[in-house]
Amino acid sequence: MTFTTKLDQHGKRLNRKLDELLSSHGLGRGVPARLSEAVRYAALSGGKRFRPLLVIESAALFGVSPDAAMPAAAAIECVHCYSLSHDDLPAMDDDDIRRGKPTVHIAFDEATAILAGDSLLTLAFEILAAPSTHSEPSVRVALIEGLGRAAGWAGMTGGQMLDLQAQELQPTKAEIERLQAMKTGALIQFSCEAGAIIGQASPAERKALKTYGAVLGRAFQISDDLLDAEGSAETVGKSTGKDDRQGKATLVGLLGIDQARSYLMALEDEAKAALSCFGERAETLIDAARFVIHRQR
Amino acid sequence: MTFTTKLDQHGKRLNRKLDELLSSHGLGRGVPARLSEAVRYAALSGGKRFRPLLVIESAALFGVSPDAAMPAAAAIECVHCYSLSHDDLPAMDDDDIRRGKPTVHIAFDEATAILAGDSLLTLAFEILAAPSTHSEPSVRVALIEGLGRAAGWAGMTGGQMLDLQAQELQPTKAEIERLQAMKTGALIQFSCEAGAIIGQASPAERKALKTYGAVLGRAFQISDDLLDAEGSAETVGKSTGKDDRQGKATLVGLLGIDQARSYLMALEDEAKAALSCFGERAETLIDAARFVIHRQR
Repeated sequence: MTFTTKLDQHGKRLNRKLDELLSSHGLGRGVPARLSEAVRYAALSGGKRFRPLLVIESAALFGVSPDAAMPAAAAIECVHCYSLSHDDLPAMDDDDIRRGKPTVHIAFDEATAILAGDSLLTLAFEILAAPSTHSEPSVRVALIEGLGRAAGWAGMTGGQMLDLQAQELQPTKAEIERLQAMKTGALIQFSCEAGAIIGQASPAERKALKTYGAVLGRAFQISDDLLDAEGSAETVGKSTGKDDRQGKATLVGLLGIDQARSYLMALEDEAKAALSCFGERAETLIDAARFVIHRQR
Repeated sequence: MTFTTKLDQHGKRLNRKLDELLSSHGLGRGVPARLSEAVRYAALSGGKRFRPLLVIESAALFGVSPDAAMPAAAAIECVHCYSLSHDDLPAMDDDDIRRGKPTVHIAFDEATAILAGDSLLTLAFEILAAPSTHSEPSVRVALIEGLGRAAGWAGMTGGQMLDLQAQELQPTKAEIERLQAMKTGALIQFSCEAGAIIGQASPAERKALKTYGAVLGRAFQISDDLLDAEGSAETVGKSTGKDDRQGKATLVGLLGIDQARSYLMALEDEAKAALSCFGERAETLIDAARFVIHRQR
């Protein structure tokens, strides 16, 4: 099975699981119709579901089935979707199109987009706390602590803050890498670590997945920035060339397209090396790194 | 000791704990200075710390010390402060003054106020997941599940959505009560329930505290609306008469001041009745209900 087929299959299962979780946590509990619609729009409007794949495939290294990893995968995707809903707001990146569709504040309004994001973030933790995520409470609290750390002010929200500030400053390469590690890298890294937590991996195995996740996060951001610099809105599915117009801090802007691309290519070996302790079992995760590094959209 | 002295004492301890938690979760973890400042501003700019008192005094019914209840109390206050930061945004209630000071988006800017709120919400769950909140992971996940439920789309964010929609509709008494139970009531109720969870109370005791919390939440909202209708900005510490100008749905607006006040007074006996199983031990919680019902600010 090719990697993209696997990504597609996991994505479809994730969509079903997310739909089911949104229903079971929403129906019969008096959620206002408009908020429910906005949350579902934010969570179920496409996307590659790349982070869930990382959770599922990392957990698989320890014999955990995709079904068993699915609630944690869905929770992490909720956090990703919340961050998109908030980052697209006029006060933030002011984006109108996402995944080829109007962003949440365009399809609804600003207040609803803020509340939909808040609701998804909250729901993610509620999902992780539920017994269906793992039978052991100690595993669930480890997931919650890790997600909190990755999504919070020392991770995702902090990275978004730095990104907004970078538009007025001239950050160095190290500063750009730090902001990207926080803004995008932390959640990608935690997706890999989450698999280790669910699989009750050894500290060494967990550390290996964290290292892999950090490399993958870096690759993901550079490839995203390259697509933005080179792509058209049609193939990328969101507005492009925008980083440059907004004066956004990217490695592509700092190093130029060619140097950024060769930097990206070098990360393939780094990703492989990080996973060496798992041998052939890590094939899909290595494919995931290749996919990110060579993707066209 | 009078109730207000107790509220003041618990409040000071809570402020110290919150300050300590913000430091231990922020320092050395690369949190951007501006975001850190905004989070501290949102979390440490006064407030009665009424929800923390409820957690501490509910837990005390089961022999839990204030110190032991403090992390959960601080987490719930983080959620309260996040909700204020977001609700005050121009796209929401558009408030410039809160607790006598500029609101977060005025003191900083909109993007920072959104990110500060997001960070506080995330931090609340991270605090609850940590061993210092309770030695038993099963207690921590119960707190997280309950907080997620109270703060999410079937609770606080759903209530705020209904509140925004109510400005254009003419909600009935039942609809106003439902929206207020979600927007304000859910977190107050959970503050009481959290004490029962930390204290590993029996199901009947937990239910009694939930009932009390629901009554208290109703009282809190009506008294808040009465203060808004009658008070001056100086004593209330935020803009007043605003509900009426915004066409906000309140029971005071629907029933008139006199009828709303007698409805509020009747809640004192309901609160007492809910706590009857605890006998004299529940004195401070009964005082809390009296305080809410008779407060002038």
